[in-house]
Amino acid sequence: MQTDPERMLRDLADLRRIGAVGTGVVRPAFSETDIAARHWLAERMREAGLTPGFDPIGNLFGLPPGEAPCLLLGSHSDTQPQGGWLDGAYGVIAALEVARAAREAGGPGIAVVSFQDEEGRFGGLTGSSVWSGALSLAEADAMTDTGGVALADARAAMADVAGGFVDPARFTGFVEMHIEQGPVLDQAGEAIGVVEAIAGLRQLDIRLSGQQNHAGTTPMRLRRDAMQGLIGFATRLNVVLEPLATPATVWTIGHVQVEPNAASIVPGMVRFTVQWRDAEAARLERMEAATRDTAAEVAGERGLGLEISDFPPLSPVALDPGLCAHLAAAAEHCVPGRWRRMVSGALHDATNVARLMPTAMLFVPSIGGISHSFAEDTAEADLIAGVEVLAEAARRITAA
Amino acid sequence: MQTDPERMLRDLADLRRIGAVGTGVVRPAFSETDIAARHWLAERMREAGLTPGFDPIGNLFGLPPGEAPCLLLGSHSDTQPQGGWLDGAYGVIAALEVARAAREAGGPGIAVVSFQDEEGRFGGLTGSSVWSGALSLAEADAMTDTGGVALADARAAMADVAGGFVDPARFTGFVEMHIEQGPVLDQAGEAIGVVEAIAGLRQLDIRLSGQQNHAGTTPMRLRRDAMQGLIGFATRLNVVLEPLATPATVWTIGHVQVEPNAASIVPGMVRFTVQWRDAEAARLERMEAATRDTAAEVAGERGLGLEISDFPPLSPVALDPGLCAHLAAAAEHCVPGRWRRMVSGALHDATNVARLMPTAMLFVPSIGGISHSFAEDTAEADLIAGVEVLAEAARRITAA
Repeated sequence: MQTDPERMLRDLADLRRIGAVGTGVVRPAFSETDIAARHWLAERMREAGLTPGFDPIGNLFGLPPGEAPCLLLGSHSDTQPQGGWLDGAYGVIAALEVARAAREAGGPGIAVVSFQDEEGRFGGLTGSSVWSGALSLAEADAMTDTGGVALADARAAMADVAGGFVDPARFTGFVEMHIEQGPVLDQAGEAIGVVEAIAGLRQLDIRLSGQQNHAGTTPMRLRRDAMQGLIGFATRLNVVLEPLATPATVWTIGHVQVEPNAASIVPGMVRFTVQWRDAEAARLERMEAATRDTAAEVAGERGLGLEISDFPPLSPVALDPGLCAHLAAAAEHCVPGRWRRMVSGALHDATNVARLMPTAMLFVPSIGGISHSFAEDTAEADLIAGVEVLAEAARRITAA
Repeated sequence: MQTDPERMLRDLADLRRIGAVGTGVVRPAFSETDIAARHWLAERMREAGLTPGFDPIGNLFGLPPGEAPCLLLGSHSDTQPQGGWLDGAYGVIAALEVARAAREAGGPGIAVVSFQDEEGRFGGLTGSSVWSGALSLAEADAMTDTGGVALADARAAMADVAGGFVDPARFTGFVEMHIEQGPVLDQAGEAIGVVEAIAGLRQLDIRLSGQQNHAGTTPMRLRRDAMQGLIGFATRLNVVLEPLATPATVWTIGHVQVEPNAASIVPGMVRFTVQWRDAEAARLERMEAATRDTAAEVAGERGLGLEISDFPPLSPVALDPGLCAHLAAAAEHCVPGRWRRMVSGALHDATNVARLMPTAMLFVPSIGGISHSFAEDTAEADLIAGVEVLAEAARRITAA
């Protein structure tokens, strides 16, 4: 099979126009633009010799002729409320191009998917969650967006085209290509990331309570300052997590709320999140213990009250070693020396699909690591290299 | 002169009823309850043989008969929006009791004042600022409260009773008694603080800007995390300020704003206040240099943008050593060994009056250091000791 890079770039440009706002795209799940894009995609699938079909949750599958199990490629075509043009869309259009090239070459049969609501207008990874059985349709229907619209009402707009769920047994495996959405490949000047695992995530919501006081009349030695508690905690946390971490391990204090948050008042309460991600469950566990111990130590030393709430943990997902080996061989064939094995710090639909079948992912660089932004972009040469690696990988996987 | 503690406590209880809410008091400047309290006070002054008079900004003076310059005692009777029953009120009623006792004893003549808007419904120390000439009446009139009401309109409610400004030359000196509003006397089990200085205050509004990023896809080594910048800054600031500080020096990070303030996003910007107070201008200056240097160092090391805004500085005020010596002698006489010399970390009307005449202050303990709260309180024995020390001091000052 021989992909046509120009044709893929044209399709990507056409899809970008649906919901375009400046350099970005506004195409949240089940919006008019999202539905229009899904119909446009179904038409492209049909032209490529695939049979398009929507399932009840809005996932669009394009299936090759015949009943034989085949490889599935794809990603999602919905966007963030203010999204970039490549997040999801690139993986869908690259899949379409490879499936089309395979059809033109007389085989192998390759299927294409665009999952629905990956970006979480309602839940996040919603379409692949329902398809993989992690979430029931009834549970999904009850979810609402920030404006109070229920998913059940939103998906009614596609009821006229909705068919049944595609049987996952139709597929031998799944490869999702995606932009990295981080700076690693761009900084290293590399073209491809072979994703071996999707990082798990844990998060604690920590509340330190001290004594709210007048910032003029309360001597330092008599203060129980919640903000100074956070400062002491965060400084020590960096020290204790450092030796537990790999270069791919991350931790973040992203949300901070100070009470009463006034320049002349010693803070009586501070509430903040600590979130960390890693590809190994055992490391996530060790980091949680270290975080809880550090919070307890600092609170104890400073006479602060301590409350910790759990956030539901997300387990790391190891991707299929056999598929990863094919992706690595394809990358070395197409862009020798310009690729790496890596961990995805962000979640993807592949997380859900990995429960059902062998699954792997490919990354292409994001310029400056920017994503979820109108400024999101990838060099044209990298977009082209990506689809060539995906096609080469599909060739190797289906020949194996 | 012989003060009557029971009479003073009765007056204090009566004043507490005007605007009482639970154990607290709601009597903001020029509210109905504040105006009612001022009229009630004027009546008590008249009964005590003083001539009451309101000036254009709402300050209430009670003057003894005759034209001879006399000692002025007092504080303020307006409260915080949710104020305690003693903040300001205690100093006014103690002054009334001492002036009344002096009248009963046939002299010396002692005047009483309740300044207006000490608590800052409009400006903060507004009445004493206008009376001392630090603020013009026109400037004050233009100030508005948080609801948009101009002081000019608020004070119109007292236009029917407003007379001229009292000439400061009527007074030989000013002594303000006040609750400490901090924990020092209470913790030490002491009854009286002789305030030798009112701390000055400086404040910087610091903004550190980094790079907002995805908390999953951005490796630690490639982050420019503004929140980590604040953590590094605050930790180092504690180290550099420690050797510059006295036990009375304080510094506070009280206001913190993180952008975008989401658990899964590396903070791109953090804005926070650093405020510090001390009785010595040179120390305030050294602390400012250390704070600015530390911010510049941390921003430089971490590749963060740095912007610093000045807050108008408040200079420290040294109180009158001669008056302080009389207050110290009176304290040692009434509560031997149970008093200390100290610095006020909070602002008071004495700050303004000190520009015009010899001025000093006395503190009584605040239980638990609590103030600006319905829970504000002082032991009855301490309220009584306070008025005895004030009377003894007035005796010594007027005899000198």
